[in-house]
Amino acid sequence: MAELETFENPHPNRDYTIRHVAPEFTSLCPKTGQPDFGTIEIDYIPDKMCIELKSLKFYLQEYRNQGAFYEDLVNRILDDLVSCLAPRRMSVIGKFTPRGGMHSIVEARHESE
Amino acid sequence: MAELETFENPHPNRDYTIRHVAPEFTSLCPKTGQPDFGTIEIDYIPDKMCIELKSLKFYLQEYRNQGAFYEDLVNRILDDLVSCLAPRRMSVIGKFTPRGGMHSIVEARHESE
Amino acid sequence: MAELETFENPHPNRDYTIRHVAPEFTSLCPKTGQPDFGTIEIDYIPDKMCIELKSLKFYLQEYRNQGAFYEDLVNRILDDLVSCLAPRRMSVIGKFTPRGGMHSIVEARHESE
Amino acid sequence: MAELETFENPHPNRDYTIRHVAPEFTSLCPKTGQPDFGTIEIDYIPDKMCIELKSLKFYLQEYRNQGAFYEDLVNRILDDLVSCLAPRRMSVIGKFTPRGGMHSIVEARHESE
Amino acid sequence: MAELETFENPHPNRDYTIRHVAPEFTSLCPKTGQPDFGTIEIDYIPDKMCIELKSLKFYLQEYRNQGAFYEDLVNRILDDLVSCLAPRRMSVIGKFTPRGGMHSIVEARHESE
Amino acid sequence: MAELETFENPHPNRDYTIRHVAPEFTSLCPKTGQPDFGTIEIDYIPDKMCIELKSLKFYLQEYRNQGAFYEDLVNRILDDLVSCLAPRRMSVIGKFTPRGGMHSIVEARHESE
Amino acid sequence: MAELETFENPHPNRDYTIRHVAPEFTSLCPKTGQPDFGTIEIDYIPDKMCIELKSLKFYLQEYRNQGAFYEDLVNRILDDLVSCLAPRRMSVIGKFTPRGGMHSIVEARHESE
Amino acid sequence: MAELETFENPHPNRDYTIRHVAPEFTSLCPKTGQPDFGTIEIDYIPDKMCIELKSLKFYLQEYRNQGAFYEDLVNRILDDLVSCLAPRRMSVIGKFTPRGGMHSIVEARHESE
Amino acid sequence: MAELETFENPHPNRDYTIRHVAPEFTSLCPKTGQPDFGTIEIDYIPDKMCIELKSLKFYLQEYRNQGAFYEDLVNRILDDLVSCLAPRRMSVIGKFTPRGGMHSIVEARHESE
Amino acid sequence: MAELETFENPHPNRDYTIRHVAPEFTSLCPKTGQPDFGTIEIDYIPDKMCIELKSLKFYLQEYRNQGAFYEDLVNRILDDLVSCLAPRRMSVIGKFTPRGGMHSIVEARHESE
Repeated sequence: MAELETFENPHPNRDYTIRHVAPEFTSLCPKTGQPDFGTIEIDYIPDKMCIELKSLKFYLQEYRNQGAFYEDLVNRILDDLVSCLAPRRMSVIGKFTPRGGMHSIVEARHESE
Repeated sequence: MAELETFENPHPNRDYTIRHVAPEFTSLCPKTGQPDFGTIEIDYIPDKMCIELKSLKFYLQEYRNQGAFYEDLVNRILDDLVSCLAPRRMSVIGKFTPRGGMHSIVEARHESE
Repeated sequence: MAELETFENPHPNRDYTIRHVAPEFTSLCPKTGQPDFGTIEIDYIPDKMCIELKSLKFYLQEYRNQGAFYEDLVNRILDDLVSCLAPRRMSVIGKFTPRGGMHSIVEARHESE
Repeated sequence: MAELETFENPHPNRDYTIRHVAPEFTSLCPKTGQPDFGTIEIDYIPDKMCIELKSLKFYLQEYRNQGAFYEDLVNRILDDLVSCLAPRRMSVIGKFTPRGGMHSIVEARHESE
Repeated sequence: MAELETFENPHPNRDYTIRHVAPEFTSLCPKTGQPDFGTIEIDYIPDKMCIELKSLKFYLQEYRNQGAFYEDLVNRILDDLVSCLAPRRMSVIGKFTPRGGMHSIVEARHESE
Repeated sequence: MAELETFENPHPNRDYTIRHVAPEFTSLCPKTGQPDFGTIEIDYIPDKMCIELKSLKFYLQEYRNQGAFYEDLVNRILDDLVSCLAPRRMSVIGKFTPRGGMHSIVEARHESE
Repeated sequence: MAELETFENPHPNRDYTIRHVAPEFTSLCPKTGQPDFGTIEIDYIPDKMCIELKSLKFYLQEYRNQGAFYEDLVNRILDDLVSCLAPRRMSVIGKFTPRGGMHSIVEARHESE
Repeated sequence: MAELETFENPHPNRDYTIRHVAPEFTSLCPKTGQPDFGTIEIDYIPDKMCIELKSLKFYLQEYRNQGAFYEDLVNRILDDLVSCLAPRRMSVIGKFTPRGGMHSIVEARHESE
Repeated sequence: MAELETFENPHPNRDYTIRHVAPEFTSLCPKTGQPDFGTIEIDYIPDKMCIELKSLKFYLQEYRNQGAFYEDLVNRILDDLVSCLAPRRMSVIGKFTPRGGMHSIVEARHESE
Repeated sequence: MAELETFENPHPNRDYTIRHVAPEFTSLCPKTGQPDFGTIEIDYIPDKMCIELKSLKFYLQEYRNQGAFYEDLVNRILDDLVSCLAPRRMSVIGKFTPRGGMHSIVEARHESE
């Protein structure tokens, strides 16, 4: 996988939120091999580190030719970002385009203990 | 009825939500036999199982030639999904198109005990 | 007045909500006799009875040639529906079109004790 | 019928257009007696006379308790306004709210010879 | 098929247009048997006859359990309406919901000679 | 100032809300004398009295040729309405159009003790 | 009246269009003295001169306390601008907010001979 | 390349239009190798053949891992479809998402001689 | 930096909120030197002082030729305004336009102790 | 000025259009030195050359610290692009944000002889 890069949180004394919205996400359906499309929204309160935007873009592009279920995708992105950033709080939402006349939204959250 | 299929929740240790939105729902009015149209939104926190999307599509299509009141439809879909998935929490919303100059929205929720 | 008809709540064991939205409401201004226009939204948790849609339509049409202030209209519709349905909870909102460059919204709620 | 009043076109040497949009139009269905609702748009190039707005409002209100088909309504409003104003050009559009899951738009035009 | 009913054009001396928009259209895919959904827009200048709305609704409902390609559907509806109404001009547009990530629009026109 | 008129609350036994939205508000900038424009939203739970709409319109028009800062305007309107109506709760919001590339929103609330 | 100022067209060899949109226009109703509100859109192809924006703002503000009918306002603004700028082509549109449940749009055009 | 499949035009005697809109198009930037995203709209009047939807989907997916400039992409898609369908008329539009703060739209048309 | 000017809060006895929305914010990317664009929203409850609008405009313009990361920008604006106004509560939100196919939103809050 | 780069039109035998939309345009007001903001839309039919996107971005950024009137800006951008590309046809539109309560749109076109 592309390496997620971070930079030091410039204001670690304050709880503040950062949201990155990536409407150009695409992966493959693990059953049919057909492309899936969606928007990934990442929302977090940084602790010591912030995610560097360009490396986040490359990280999300890595899914372009991978097969994964929606439920799995969102949880994996959350797990990867949490293990890299150790944020105070984070949520990841995936909003996927219609398949078979239905569209799907998956949302997962992490709270630091 | 079409059988609802499930697959194992790939991240059972985390409470996360899945929403499927089906804007192509149609059934019949039990009084007049005329077609009704609406959008069904299903929102849940999975426990051990997730609903398989294609079987959900077929399940909802089964209503195409059945007569049912809005209030009954939404509760029946909730009951069927709850008994199949045993989710930690689930809600079903039906948003129906105008009849007689009025449109209707019915929403039911289930919480596991 | 047109009689409000009801039918038995098909799922009385569950608290669920029903919303009917009627954008074709019209009455008369009690001061000028001029027509007023608005949208009436009715939102409730049924107890033993649900409101039958066609009779609700006829009930709302009864206001077509009656004079009433916005504040009074919304409260009267709420009173009539509560006394007929004895719902667990109900709200009525009236959103009226501009008069004298201002538009008005009135909202009343009822909770069963 | 309420009398349509006019005032002298203040700039008769120039072809210019006036549009009045009345979203609070209501009449009755001639078959069922049920109320119909819609928006009436009137667009014209005045010749010697302009329509006075308040009398236009009263004129349109006269339809409140009359039964008429959409196709007839729009043509009658056009005929009445043309015979009263003798405009250089006029169109009347009626955009009606859904009945039986369909909405309808009727548009008629008049050109002075 | 349900019979299309007509009524006499109340203003045959004027060319005017009537548009009926039916957003609750559904048919079946002839290859998969799966339901298709779309909006049918009918736009015409009547000659001697106008289409009666209720019979148009029933006519369109006849497609509910028929299999037909989009390209065929729109042309067949146009043919049926033209042979029934002999309008001065008519167009039929079908706007279908996404299948395989693409949505389709088909438009056909008829001019009387 | 134009006198604010009131009428007796027709349903004083129930807490319900009334909102009046006035998008045609204008006053003068106290520094430059230039006109300011905005929307005033008034939201309240009446106690014994309701505000009469026409007198509210005249009251708001009184600001047309007065100079006042946004922060002051909203608080003064709230003070005037509270002293006249003694409502159970009231808020006033002013949403002003852009000046110098920025637009401003001021919101003040009153709770009866 | 405030004087309309102009500046030399910097590109007189090319036909190009300039549109100024003024959504903060207000005048008085000549019958009732009540304020009217609207948006004025000015669209022109300059010849030798362009209108200076600040003086246009002051010119439009002059209507703030004048009474004028919509039909007259739009034509007068066009006349004043044409006599000041002698443009190759100009149109003025006034879009006014609802009065008596109807809103009005007036549009006048000038072509240099 | 995936083969474009066709079926016989079911109504070859009439000029009618078919539009397919594919909002899930993605290719690669030929300079940077980074993914590009856009919507492809195909509009045509069929002659003897219509494009089969599923094969069109597979054809467009072929660009997923190809590098091409926007200007080239749209013209190539047009060329491929014209040589396969020989339509009476066809246009292809590509609407691409922002790159460097700018978004781009390319449109090409073909007319049979 | 441009000096932030204040004026005395005209209603210090009441907690009320002021929001200024500045959609014309621009700064430079500290890595590439390329311009960034966004909207800055400032929301606060004043204590003794309010921010003067014109000086706020000049203050925000100072960022036009400065390099700063989104995360830093929003926190610095909050720090500067808090140290100048000592508000009872304040939040600053920056909504930035897409870079690399992603857009970002940063939000920071301050509460007086 | 930054140099505008071009590349060879890959399909010179066909008239097709390219539109680039740049919503992040900013320049300075030549009278006050204050920043102006707007969207620049460039639409052209290429002849032998197409404009390279990155160089177009740098070219538009050159205006960031230049003073220019709207009328002049749009014509200068058109002149520069025409002299660099010699397109078959080109238009440039500038849509600027409100100043003094008015927003402005300037549009200029070039046709090759």
